[in-house]
Amino acid sequence: MVIAPARIGMHLEDVDTPALVVDLDALESNIGRMAKAVDHAVRLRPHAKSHKCAEIARRQIAAGAVGVCSQKVSEAEALVAGGVADVLVTNEIVGARKVERLARLAREAKVGVLADDAGNVAELDAAARAERVRLDVLIEIDVGAHRCGIEPGAPALALAKAIAGCRNLRFAGLHAYHGAAQHVRSASERAAAIAAAAEKARMTKALIEREGLACETITGAGTGTFLLESGSRVFNEIQPGSYVFMDADYNRNAWETGWPRFEQSLFVLATVMSVPASDRAVVDAGLKASSVDSGMPLVHERPGVEYAKASDEHGVLKIAPSAKAPKLGEKLLLIPGHCDPTVNLYDWFVCVRKGRVEALWPVTARGALY
Amino acid sequence: MVIAPARIGMHLEDVDTPALVVDLDALESNIGRMAKAVDHAVRLRPHAKSHKCAEIARRQIAAGAVGVCSQKVSEAEALVAGGVADVLVTNEIVGARKVERLARLAREAKVGVLADDAGNVAELDAAARAERVRLDVLIEIDVGAHRCGIEPGAPALALAKAIAGCRNLRFAGLHAYHGAAQHVRSASERAAAIAAAAEKARMTKALIEREGLACETITGAGTGTFLLESGSRVFNEIQPGSYVFMDADYNRNAWETGWPRFEQSLFVLATVMSVPASDRAVVDAGLKASSVDSGMPLVHERPGVEYAKASDEHGVLKIAPSAKAPKLGEKLLLIPGHCDPTVNLYDWFVCVRKGRVEALWPVTARGALY
Repeated sequence: MVIAPARIGMHLEDVDTPALVVDLDALESNIGRMAKAVDHAVRLRPHAKSHKCAEIARRQIAAGAVGVCSQKVSEAEALVAGGVADVLVTNEIVGARKVERLARLAREAKVGVLADDAGNVAELDAAARAERVRLDVLIEIDVGAHRCGIEPGAPALALAKAIAGCRNLRFAGLHAYHGAAQHVRSASERAAAIAAAAEKARMTKALIEREGLACETITGAGTGTFLLESGSRVFNEIQPGSYVFMDADYNRNAWETGWPRFEQSLFVLATVMSVPASDRAVVDAGLKASSVDSGMPLVHERPGVEYAKASDEHGVLKIAPSAKAPKLGEKLLLIPGHCDPTVNLYDWFVCVRKGRVEALWPVTARGALY
Repeated sequence: MVIAPARIGMHLEDVDTPALVVDLDALESNIGRMAKAVDHAVRLRPHAKSHKCAEIARRQIAAGAVGVCSQKVSEAEALVAGGVADVLVTNEIVGARKVERLARLAREAKVGVLADDAGNVAELDAAARAERVRLDVLIEIDVGAHRCGIEPGAPALALAKAIAGCRNLRFAGLHAYHGAAQHVRSASERAAAIAAAAEKARMTKALIEREGLACETITGAGTGTFLLESGSRVFNEIQPGSYVFMDADYNRNAWETGWPRFEQSLFVLATVMSVPASDRAVVDAGLKASSVDSGMPLVHERPGVEYAKASDEHGVLKIAPSAKAPKLGEKLLLIPGHCDPTVNLYDWFVCVRKGRVEALWPVTARGALY
């Protein structure tokens, strides 16, 4: 683990760079706004894959979340070790070693997992039996993202019966997450995608319940669509993650009137390390400091200064003639293109309030890929 | 630091996933081929930003390298702590805290650094004086990459005089790296770019030497061009990095006859976690397991199986009708699109020989961004 680039009490401008900076006022505001925005009949289970941080998970739970989601067994292990008592792994967990660890974790915390395959269900049941635990299993149905997931309707019903027939598993409901819809820019197109997803979930639930099986939880949603699922009367649990931080990609979505205004709380602090020309400067934060899979970072509050190109350890800034030119040694805040993989590059959140470092939080599950 | 996904002696197929796998036969062959390929009048100083691993650096030095390059002070610190005695930081280091640490490191190892600004030179000199060390400083000249670097010719000469005038700095030569040329696909276009870069370096060196200043080292080159610099009679040091591993992006270059055949030694091992349709499978290695900045990973030795789309924790494979379809739970080797930022995602190299885990090497400088 790399040493922290800051000490508590330091001014932001003295923090070493590149550093992952969290504005605590904005983070707290985002956690509060989400808790308020969700329909009272819907449980909030934020996705911890965005922050990978036990401290943030505990704050979300203190604000009313029922637990968190995670995407990997090792991520769930790190969060449980950090004091989280209820984790839904929103992913298929396949392979003896992983499934064993998942079942073992269920001795320490409430643990749920997804399945989309009958063979995998048998593997989960055997592991749960060996650990003498009961695992909650939700069926992932493909509601339009075309990634994992079984077809809604009859195939899901058959799998639900298989799960219900396992002694050490409990059929807990449906996972109907539409990942592809989160970054659709137009609000009306997002609404249409989630309406179709909700209908698939509703129909599948009805089919399963007609066969006498309870289908307790319908979960899904992300930061781009959660109010739609929350208001659908189909979903009773939602799992947005990025809202705690936001990023350049989410900020490009067009939001409906009435959508909560989440603030940008996550930044990469970078130093201007070279000013080779009047129209160009270079910062010390490149590909290894800010993930570019969803586009380049934006330079915060510096109109006319564009982060144009990233290489491994450099970011090239294009400076418009009218812009205030960055000086050598100056520190700039960048808004990452995509928050989740950017957070995963760092060991520490440098938590800042009104320009002062107030806390250093470890990224508890950084690199927890397994 | 995440626990290692393997134990020594294990079969490759029992390694937990995603895992960063190194084929030791291929790695050793690549280290040997590079040592042999370099002109005997040219020093090899491989770039450690690719592997960030003290164990690999020591092997490169044992095979004849004079030391290594690094891109960050904290990366250099980690390598020196791991037993490397000579590190050139091929980057401008700006800001009091970083410059102090750089100078302190020069008490433990031979340390060099780049500069492209007179103010920064003064900052380096003051830090070196405070630590009572002498720092080697090379001038970075812009030979066509248009990132950092001062203009060749007169501006470089003025900076060389400024460095030579500093009591605690030694003017050590020119850094003439053409990053943009490394991934130009056509061999003749790469040759033209490096010929132009070499001419700029030669002319600047001559200008500086006419003023009575020694210009000892001319360094540059990467895996895509190193034979050109090595044969130029201008460069006397080269710094390729990726050749130890290779990646999908470098493998797309067209190589000249006589270019050493570096083998792919770096892989991401992934598990097939969902097979939702006959033309689609999903692996557990996404954006957080393989950097996609230079394109998607390739599936190793599985014709007709294409890694089509990455999300945070998933990779979607498209399966051609003629292809052998991946089975649920099967493990596949992926060739990363870009080796450097992929290595930086992992804590461990799982080192494999003929299908067995022979060693686990920490990625010593993983996340060393500062």
